[in-house]
Amino acid sequence: MPTLPASVTIVEVGPRDGLQNESAHISTDEKVAYVDRLSAAGLREIEVSAFVSPTWMPQLADAIEVFRRIVRKPGTRYSALVPNMTGLERAITAGVTDVAIFAAASETFSRKNTNRGIDESFATYREVTDAAIAAGLRVRGYLSTAFACPFEGVVPVDRVVELTSRLLDLGVYEVAISDTIGTAHPGQVQLLLSQLLLPVPSTRIALHFHDTRGMALANVLTALEFGIATFDSSAGGLGGCPYAPGSTGNVATEDLLYMLDGLGIDTGVRIDRVSDAARGIAPLLTHPLSSRYTLARR
Amino acid sequence: MPTLPASVTIVEVGPRDGLQNESAHISTDEKVAYVDRLSAAGLREIEVSAFVSPTWMPQLADAIEVFRRIVRKPGTRYSALVPNMTGLERAITAGVTDVAIFAAASETFSRKNTNRGIDESFATYREVTDAAIAAGLRVRGYLSTAFACPFEGVVPVDRVVELTSRLLDLGVYEVAISDTIGTAHPGQVQLLLSQLLLPVPSTRIALHFHDTRGMALANVLTALEFGIATFDSSAGGLGGCPYAPGSTGNVATEDLLYMLDGLGIDTGVRIDRVSDAARGIAPLLTHPLSSRYTLARR
Repeated sequence: MPTLPASVTIVEVGPRDGLQNESAHISTDEKVAYVDRLSAAGLREIEVSAFVSPTWMPQLADAIEVFRRIVRKPGTRYSALVPNMTGLERAITAGVTDVAIFAAASETFSRKNTNRGIDESFATYREVTDAAIAAGLRVRGYLSTAFACPFEGVVPVDRVVELTSRLLDLGVYEVAISDTIGTAHPGQVQLLLSQLLLPVPSTRIALHFHDTRGMALANVLTALEFGIATFDSSAGGLGGCPYAPGSTGNVATEDLLYMLDGLGIDTGVRIDRVSDAARGIAPLLTHPLSSRYTLARR
Repeated sequence: MPTLPASVTIVEVGPRDGLQNESAHISTDEKVAYVDRLSAAGLREIEVSAFVSPTWMPQLADAIEVFRRIVRKPGTRYSALVPNMTGLERAITAGVTDVAIFAAASETFSRKNTNRGIDESFATYREVTDAAIAAGLRVRGYLSTAFACPFEGVVPVDRVVELTSRLLDLGVYEVAISDTIGTAHPGQVQLLLSQLLLPVPSTRIALHFHDTRGMALANVLTALEFGIATFDSSAGGLGGCPYAPGSTGNVATEDLLYMLDGLGIDTGVRIDRVSDAARGIAPLLTHPLSSRYTLARR
């Protein structure tokens, strides 16, 4: 059997990627409580919100308030998604130290999601990344629809390799390769990583899976075997994708932890505290949590 | 990466293990339609029902009728669970050619489930297996609670190795190592198989996972890496465990197929036909299907 990483970093994206796709309105108080419970559980990377137009993501319109009110735990990094210079400037004003940019590997998805083609979005992100780094911020990159696009179908591996390299060239410290619609399976993960890790070190790659077809943890296991040691997840399995009917959210942080704990991989995160955070927000949602672990807990 | 098997046998257990744990009453007609759709999908091993006391499994009281009315597809094997000689005799009378016996790796579970301790159950199963083989039947063995027991907790690996060997010594052609309550994770699967496959060839082992904590497919992937090539699953993810609150059913056949198809592993089974069979029975249940694949299908 391949040797797995001894420790893994979990990037908790429930407050941003999760809540962004929830139809129930969540109050600022509840968001702050959710984030504070997650940091208390030991999560050291939390994507808190996004500085985007409120018409684009109404759920996250209170980003400034959320950042103002969370209790910053020493050693924990709190990040925000920024789509453009306006977003970056608002984030900097709010005292945000970590931002993320969101590119797509599908031309059609890029245009539908942000009204910009891939090359145009990279021009914007160069400006954003330069300014963010100049201001002392750390910048993470997402590459969405990296396995398949709801409009174009399967995305070619060489395009993902090329766009990942372009994101790293901008100066991002890490690229989260994202299965936005949850169709990726371990065969695709093998194929992608066997190519991607030729030019790119595994330490610069995170994987971001949605569990729409139940593949997320098998995909994580495959990626662990390639030495990937950073994974995105959302407490409770919050989220979804507005373009993909029936899609569920990010893989649940507590389900991921159950597997990593069982494999003896250190994360520094306490599973039942994460599950408690998910239970705290569950009554506010319009649907049951998708975390199998939390649903099975007595 | 380890080499995976080129082909896998799926043992479809939805009609027995799945329906046995469903609270909605399913008519004989509907069961027959479910089984016939599953054989038409290409499944070549289908556990159809059980010859047990109707007070123990009321849902399966019509086993004789179901066996009488299914359309037997050439090349497909249709099996039944038999707990004792009475069950075996009824199965033989019904023309059943393949039976399964059901031992437990936990003394407490064995007593609660069948009113017999492990050794006592083996005495019965020796008689049943001898008689079945003498009558020309093929006998499969289950080893339930092989990872954990709802009463005793984690089950020691050496006990599983010993009981698997004892089942094979009875003359069963295969032992289905079963995670009855769905707590197994890839770390446990690695630990178990690294010991179990010392005395036992991988061709004599099947794995049977419930998806209660979302680990089933990651567990299957781990087992594939050990060369295991037979897995139990239920179309739609039907089932559960009456002793484990919140537990979901067997891993869904279509979710398993999505992963195996993606890995290029041949099964001879058509995923959308299996999903159609699950959709056929879904309106009769008291809850949504647990198959992520079928839920995400448009």
